[in-house]
Amino acid sequence: MKRVYKLTLFLFVAGLSTAFAQDEKVDLEVIDKIRNEGMNNSKVMDIAFYLTDVSGPRLSNSTGLKNAQNWAVESFKQWGLTNPHKEEWGEFGRGWEIEKSYIAMTKPYYQVMIGSPKAWTTGTNKQIKGNVMLVKIKSDSDFVKYAGQLKGKIVMMDVPSTIKIGFEADAKRYTDEDLAKMASYSDENPAAKDTYSPKMIQEYRARAAMANKFREFCLNEKAALIISYGRGNTGTYFTSNGASYAVDAKPTLPEMEVSAEHYQRMIRLLNANIPVELEIDTKTRFVQDDLKGYNVIAEIPGTDPVLKDEVVMLGAHLDSWFAATGATDNAAGSAVVMEAVRIIKSLDLKPKRTIRIALWSSEEQGLFGSRGYVKQHFGDKTTMALLPEHEKLSAYYNLDNGTGKIRGIYTQGNKTIVPIFTKWLEPFANLGASTVTLSNTGGTDHLSYDALGLPGFQFIQDEMDYNTRTHHTNMDTYDRLSAEDLKQASIIMAAFVYNTAVREAKIPRKELPKAQEKATGSK
Amino acid sequence: MKRVYKLTLFLFVAGLSTAFAQDEKVDLEVIDKIRNEGMNNSKVMDIAFYLTDVSGPRLSNSTGLKNAQNWAVESFKQWGLTNPHKEEWGEFGRGWEIEKSYIAMTKPYYQVMIGSPKAWTTGTNKQIKGNVMLVKIKSDSDFVKYAGQLKGKIVMMDVPSTIKIGFEADAKRYTDEDLAKMASYSDENPAAKDTYSPKMIQEYRARAAMANKFREFCLNEKAALIISYGRGNTGTYFTSNGASYAVDAKPTLPEMEVSAEHYQRMIRLLNANIPVELEIDTKTRFVQDDLKGYNVIAEIPGTDPVLKDEVVMLGAHLDSWFAATGATDNAAGSAVVMEAVRIIKSLDLKPKRTIRIALWSSEEQGLFGSRGYVKQHFGDKTTMALLPEHEKLSAYYNLDNGTGKIRGIYTQGNKTIVPIFTKWLEPFANLGASTVTLSNTGGTDHLSYDALGLPGFQFIQDEMDYNTRTHHTNMDTYDRLSAEDLKQASIIMAAFVYNTAVREAKIPRKELPKAQEKATGSK
Repeated sequence: MKRVYKLTLFLFVAGLSTAFAQDEKVDLEVIDKIRNEGMNNSKVMDIAFYLTDVSGPRLSNSTGLKNAQNWAVESFKQWGLTNPHKEEWGEFGRGWEIEKSYIAMTKPYYQVMIGSPKAWTTGTNKQIKGNVMLVKIKSDSDFVKYAGQLKGKIVMMDVPSTIKIGFEADAKRYTDEDLAKMASYSDENPAAKDTYSPKMIQEYRARAAMANKFREFCLNEKAALIISYGRGNTGTYFTSNGASYAVDAKPTLPEMEVSAEHYQRMIRLLNANIPVELEIDTKTRFVQDDLKGYNVIAEIPGTDPVLKDEVVMLGAHLDSWFAATGATDNAAGSAVVMEAVRIIKSLDLKPKRTIRIALWSSEEQGLFGSRGYVKQHFGDKTTMALLPEHEKLSAYYNLDNGTGKIRGIYTQGNKTIVPIFTKWLEPFANLGASTVTLSNTGGTDHLSYDALGLPGFQFIQDEMDYNTRTHHTNMDTYDRLSAEDLKQASIIMAAFVYNTAVREAKIPRKELPKAQEKATGSK
Repeated sequence: MKRVYKLTLFLFVAGLSTAFAQDEKVDLEVIDKIRNEGMNNSKVMDIAFYLTDVSGPRLSNSTGLKNAQNWAVESFKQWGLTNPHKEEWGEFGRGWEIEKSYIAMTKPYYQVMIGSPKAWTTGTNKQIKGNVMLVKIKSDSDFVKYAGQLKGKIVMMDVPSTIKIGFEADAKRYTDEDLAKMASYSDENPAAKDTYSPKMIQEYRARAAMANKFREFCLNEKAALIISYGRGNTGTYFTSNGASYAVDAKPTLPEMEVSAEHYQRMIRLLNANIPVELEIDTKTRFVQDDLKGYNVIAEIPGTDPVLKDEVVMLGAHLDSWFAATGATDNAAGSAVVMEAVRIIKSLDLKPKRTIRIALWSSEEQGLFGSRGYVKQHFGDKTTMALLPEHEKLSAYYNLDNGTGKIRGIYTQGNKTIVPIFTKWLEPFANLGASTVTLSNTGGTDHLSYDALGLPGFQFIQDEMDYNTRTHHTNMDTYDRLSAEDLKQASIIMAAFVYNTAVREAKIPRKELPKAQEKATGSK
C-alpha cells in the first residue's frame, strides 16, 4: 500500500552525526559472505514462486494468505529458525475469495470482458443477463433523476477515460539526479518528496465518497449489480474493495470491476443510445471460520549473553490484493526478508542481538498486522504507554515498494542515523545503493514503529512498473519480478539486519512522539 | 497485416524526375479547403466508432464485418456517393465468431484467465473441467513420448516466457533521423528497411510448423482441448487462427489462446509438479450462409468529359481479427479513406477523374479482397493478361499501418514518382509529412496493385504502439485511436487522391512485371 504521509522532522542532538560516523564499523568479511550467498545460492525466486503462484492471491484472511503463512512457517522450520509461528494480532474480520468470475458483453455483439468482482462484494450466484444502464451523477442533486429507475438493472457510472497511448515506458529506475535530490532533502529543502498532491488527494476522496453514495443508492433502489471502472489500460486494471470485511457489514450489491477499455466501450455505446447487454456469473465466498488476524514470526536467537535480549526486526506484508497473486505487492518484500534471514542462518553468522522476522497481514486494509503487533509488544501510540520490549528493540527494516532493487534508505527524519547508514551502504555502492535521505516515506508497516518512536525504516527501491502495471492490479504476477533486483535487495537487507544485530549500541532514536490529545468535537 | 517483403527495385527512365518536378502543380486553395474541412469538421472518429464499437470484431465473413460493410454502404449513400455497393471478389469460406468465452484456473486456487478461442476453432459447447497436461516437444522425436497419454486431456506446450519488464515505451513516433534514413534509401543503400530478419522468419515458421504438428497429434490422440500461448504481456495478447476457414476443413480440437502471464503460471506450477485444473466453457459459431467474399465500393464520378473514364482509387481493409474490434488494424485506415472521400464530396471538389473507394475484406488471410478485385478489374498477375481497366487506373492509395499520422509515402521503387509526391507533400511539412522513400513496404493491399505493375502506394505512418499493443491483439480497441493523427491522415489522403484526380497525366508507372514462369520441381 502507498499512502500520503506528511513529513515531520524531529529534533535531533546536533553533533552526534560526526561522532557516529567515525566509530561505525562494518565487518567486510561477513558482508562478502552475505553477498556471495545471496548472489550465488539465492532462493529468493523460489520463495517468491511459492508465495505467489503456489499460494495464490493473498487477500486478508483468504485461503491464499493462509497457504502462504503456513508455507512460510514450514520454511522457517526447515531453515532451523527458532519458534516460527502464526501470532494473532487482533480481530480482523472476514476473508473473501472469488469462486467464479465471468463477464461478457452479449449485445450489440459478443465480447468477453476483463474484470472481476470487487473485494468483499457478493456474487450473482447464477448467470444473470440484462441491459446496462448508464448513470450520470456529478453531484448529490443528480441522484433524484434516477430514483425508481434502477430496479433489477445492471448499472454503471459515467466516468472520463483515463486511457492514453503509451509513449512513456511503464517502468523506470531512479536516475543519479533523482537520487541526488533525495539525498539533498532537508527541512529547508523539502520539495523532493510528495507522491500525491493535495489536489489529487482531494479529488480521490471526492470520487471515493461519491462512489460510496452511489453504492448506497443502488442498494436502496434494488439494482441488480454495479459495474465499476478499473483504472489502468491495455488489459491491466487496478483492483479495490467494494464492501467492508467486517463480519457484521451491511449487505451490498454484487459489484464488478472491469478493465478501462471494456468499460469505456460501454459508455460510448450507451451515450450513442445503443443498448448494451451483459451476461455475468460470479460467485464469491466469505471466509469466516476465524476472524482473527495473524502475522508470521520467527527468530534467529542472539548469541551475546547480554545483547541477545535485544531485538532487530525485519518484515514485509504478506497479504495482497486479489485479482492476481500480489507479486510485487508484496510477495517481493516478503521473499526478500525471508531470503535475508535464510542467508544469515545458512551462514551461521551468530548475531549478538536476536533477529526477528515478521510477515504482516492486513497491511492493505490499514497496516493492521504491524500495528497490532507493535501495540502488543511495544506500546500504545495514542497514550504513549510503553511496554518493556520498547526499550529492547534496536530497529525495524521494512520492504514494500515492489521488485526494484534497493537504491538507499529513508531515515524518516532521523539525522543521527544518516552517518551510520551511509557507512553501511558503502560496500553496496557498486550494486547501486548508496543514498541516505532524511525524507520519510509512508504507506507501509515501518510507520507502525515510527509512530511509537521506534526506529523503523523502509528502503528506497527503484520504482520499476509499480505504479503503472503491478501495484494492486490484475497483472501483479510472478512475471513482474526481477530476480537480479530481488537478489540485490536480499543481500542489503541481510547486511543491515546483521550490522544492527552486532553493533555495539542500539540504533539511535528520534525523540519520543507525544501522546495524542483527544480530538475535540468528535466522539 | 504486416509481412516481410523483399525489396525489388525496378528500372526507371533516367532524367524524368526533374522534368516532373518542374511541371508539377498543386492547387493550394483546394488543399486549404481540404485541410479546413478535415481539421474543423472531422467525422473520422465518428466513423471509427461505428466501425469498431458499434460493428464489433470484423473477422472475415463474420457478422461484425457485415455490420461494418452495411454501415459503410449506408454512409456512402448518405454522403451522396455514386453506386455504393458490396462487390463479390470470389469465394472465401466460413465466417466465425465467438458466442461464449470463459476460462479459469480452479486449482491450486481460483483465478479467471484472460483468453479466447482461436479463430475458426470449435468450442467446448459446455463447461469442461480437468487437469492440464504440459507437453514438452522440441523436435519430432519427442512426440512418441506422449503417444496414448493425451486422451481427454487439456494440453499445452512448454514455451519460454517472452515477458519483459516495460522499460521501453509501448508507443513511438518516427524521429527526424528515422525519416532521413528512409528518404536516403536507394539501390546502393538498401539497409534502411527490414522489419523481420531472415532468422526471425525462419524461427517463426519453425514454431508455426511445430504448432500445426502438435495440433494434428492432439487431434489424433483425442485430447479434449489445446491451450496456446498468447504472445504479449500485462493483459494484452496477440491472437491468431487455430484452424482453417475453408468450408470443407478437417475438424479440429477446441483451442484457446491465453495471455502470457496466465500461461506461464501454469507452466511454472506444472514444472513444480503442482496440478493445475481448469474450467472452460466456449461456444463458437461458423457463419456459412454465404461463403463468398465482398468488398465495399463507391465512387465520386469524374467531371472531365475525357478523364472521367480514368480512375483513382483509395482503400483500406475493413476486416480485422476477433479478440477486440480491430481499431488500428484496420478501422483506422478504413475511417481515414472514408473520411477522405467525405471531405472531397462535401467540398464538391469536382475531380476530373473518377474517385473510387474500396474497403477490402479478408486482407488478414492473404490480401484476398484486393487481389480478387484487381484480378477481376485489371488483370491476372500470373499470366500478366491485362484487362482494359488496367490502362484506366491512375493510382491506388492504401492505409493500413495503424493510428499513426502520415509522415510520408513509400514509392515501391518507382523513382519517377518521387518528385511528384515530394511536391504534393510540401503543404503538409508543418503536419509532419514530408518523406518520400524509394523503399517499398509490404503486408497490405497496395501489393495487389503493385504485383500487376499498377501504381499502388502505402503511406509511411508513425508506428505508435502498433507492434506492442494493438495489431492483432485483444486490446485493439477504439481507445487506441488518436483523433489528431487520423485527422491529419484523412487530410493528406484526400489531398493525394484529389491531386491524382485532377493531374494532367496519370501517375507514371514502373515497368510491367513479367508473367510468372511455372516453378520447376513443384506441382
